[in-house]
Formats: sequence, structure tokens, C-alpha cells
Amino acid sequence: MTLVAEHIEGDTRDRILEVAERLFRVIGYQKTTVGDIAKELRMSPANVYRFFESKKAIHQAVARSLMGEVELEAQRIVARPGPVLERFRELLTTINRMNTERYVGDSKLHEMVEIAMQEDWDVCVTHMECIAGVIGQMIAQGAATGEFEVPDLQLASLCACTAMMRFFHPQMIAQCATKPGPSIDQMIDFVIAGLSPRH
Amino acid sequence: MTLVAEHIEGDTRDRILEVAERLFRVIGYQKTTVGDIAKELRMSPANVYRFFESKKAIHQAVARSLMGEVELEAQRIVARPGPVLERFRELLTTINRMNTERYVGDSKLHEMVEIAMQEDWDVCVTHMECIAGVIGQMIAQGAATGEFEVPDLQLASLCACTAMMRFFHPQMIAQCATKPGPSIDQMIDFVIAGLSPRH
Repeated sequence: MTLVAEHIEGDTRDRILEVAERLFRVIGYQKTTVGDIAKELRMSPANVYRFFESKKAIHQAVARSLMGEVELEAQRIVARPGPVLERFRELLTTINRMNTERYVGDSKLHEMVEIAMQEDWDVCVTHMECIAGVIGQMIAQGAATGEFEVPDLQLASLCACTAMMRFFHPQMIAQCATKPGPSIDQMIDFVIAGLSPRH
Repeated sequence: MTLVAEHIEGDTRDRILEVAERLFRVIGYQKTTVGDIAKELRMSPANVYRFFESKKAIHQAVARSLMGEVELEAQRIVARPGPVLERFRELLTTINRMNTERYVGDSKLHEMVEIAMQEDWDVCVTHMECIAGVIGQMIAQGAATGEFEVPDLQLASLCACTAMMRFFHPQMIAQCATKPGPSIDQMIDFVIAGLSPRH
């Protein structure tokens, strides 16, 4: 394949995902068919299937792209200079805010997440591992400055992520919105306390 | 009503709940009808409705009873003498174990919990508040011995509960069983660190 042809193929793939995401938001994942997506793009369903073998594959790619945006923003915060505790707080707050915007305010996209979670797709696990990795990098920076004290870095980041589940996990964000509990700032204080040096 | 009549009424109520729980486990909540429950008890559906106005009311009472057992066991651990850290660990582990046994191993009862969670019943909120209260009492004991240092007791117990969500919340226990994450012992260590005195 020539470079130009490859470029066009990539474009078509992106356009399919763009339209699919829009339809999932407007109509909902369950109700959107590959035919609907093809129609919007004025192409045949067969042509869509050249790029994605199933609706599920389109779903995975859309989910991957939504999660990728959160990962990118998280990585940006970790790469930036500045005081560790401040950026650590910003990092956790940003993940909460972006997940809330993406999956909770938008009930149609929430449906998509429910399906992803229930079907246990690798894409979710990969995302969680990436986020835990980024949080681990931030904790490592804190350990280097002495603001954090962690004997096991990977374990510390898994525990920090787990402690933040109410604020990270789309289903929990939605379900806990009306339940009694700490504010996200209070919860971050608690996590920071768990990572702080003692004696 | 005489005392004897009251006693019989209470007995009937308990028998309805016992049979309902059994049918929910065996057939599932959705598929069980008030008629099925009445038939098992050899009484008319109208008689069941004398005690519970709806299937939902029976569901709530069964859920309340299952949750009450966990609360009782938690209170027992808090009331017992012994080292605080040891009993704190036992308390969190027991809540995890009992919730796992009740709702996760048993997929039919899990269906019941899903419904309770989605419909946001007061009974869930009451249970969570009770568990947070018991954990608060345990933290207060630790604060008294100097093993914990907490400026705000209620907040500390909410944060500890929230941090343990992966191990307490029936849906999360089920969903996270196959996901990477800390063990419950590692997570309890992290929570204890968050509650421990520093400097």
C-alpha cells in the first residue's frame, strides 16, 4: 500500500469512530447498528466491516479513544514541573472530572461503559493499568522529594487507585453521587496521609 | 391483639421471609412471585399481602435481614476486648468475607443486590451508615490508645469505608475479583497507615 493510500485508510477509520461515538451518544450503544454508522458516512456496511470486524470492535475502539484522552491528560500532569502534592491532587481530581464528564453526565455513553465493564474487556484493564502506572510515577516523584515514603511503589499506586474507586470508577461515580461519603478533596487527603512518612 | 396472637403474626412474617430468601436464592428475585411464596407456605397470596404490601417490601425485608447479620457480627468484634489493630483488621476482613459469601458466590442473590443498588433503596444507605458507624467506633478505640490519630472521627470512618469499597461493595467484589489490585491485607495496611499518627 502506498503512503497516500494508508493515509486515506487511516482517515476513514477515524471518521467511522467519530460518527460511531456521536451515534452512541445520541441514540445509545445498543440501538446503534453498523448500518446506521455506514449510512451517516454514505458508505456501505461492507466498507465499515473492512475496518472493524464487528460493532463490538467499533465499541472497543471508541472506548479506547475516550480512555486515551484521560491517560494523555494524566501523563501531561505528571510530566509537568511543580510541587508534587499539588500535582498529585490535580492528577486525581482530573481523572475524576474527566470520567464524570465522559460517562456520568452522558447517560447514553454510560450505557456503553456498563457494557464494557460487564463484558470485562481487556481495554478496561489496560486503561486501569495505565492510570495506576501514571499515579505510580507521581508517587515516585514524591518518594524522591521525601514527601512520600513508600517501600513498594507498585503496591502503593494500586492502593491509591483502589482507595479512589468511588471517584474513578464510572459506575461508582454515578451510584455514589447521592450517597453519604467524603468529598474528593477529603479522600485525597486520606490517600496522601497513607503515603506520607511517619516518625 | 393478645400476646399469643402477636407471636403468631411475628412467626408468620419470619416464615414468609425465610421462604422468600430461599426462593430468591434458588429461582432468582425476578422470577419469584408472591404466588410462589404463598404456595410454598400453603397460604393465600392475600395472606402474604397482609404482612407485606408488595414483592418489593419482601425484598427489602430479606435484604435488611442479610445486612443485619453483617452488622451484628461487626458490632460483636468492636465490643470484644483485645488489641485494636488486630480487631480492626478482623472487622474489615469479616465485612468482606460476609459480603462475598452473601452476594457474590451466590449469583441469584447477587441479582437481588443489583436491584437494590440500582433502585437506591434506603435500606442500602442505612446499612452503609451502620457499617461506617461501627468502623468509627473501632477507630475511636484506636484513637484512645494512641494507635490511631484522627482529628475528625466521622470523616476518618467515611474515608476508611470508601477506601475499602473494592472489598465491601457487592458489585465491586464481583467485578474486581479478576482485576489487578492489592490484596485485602495490603489494602488494610494502607488504611491503617492513613489513620496512624505521624511525626
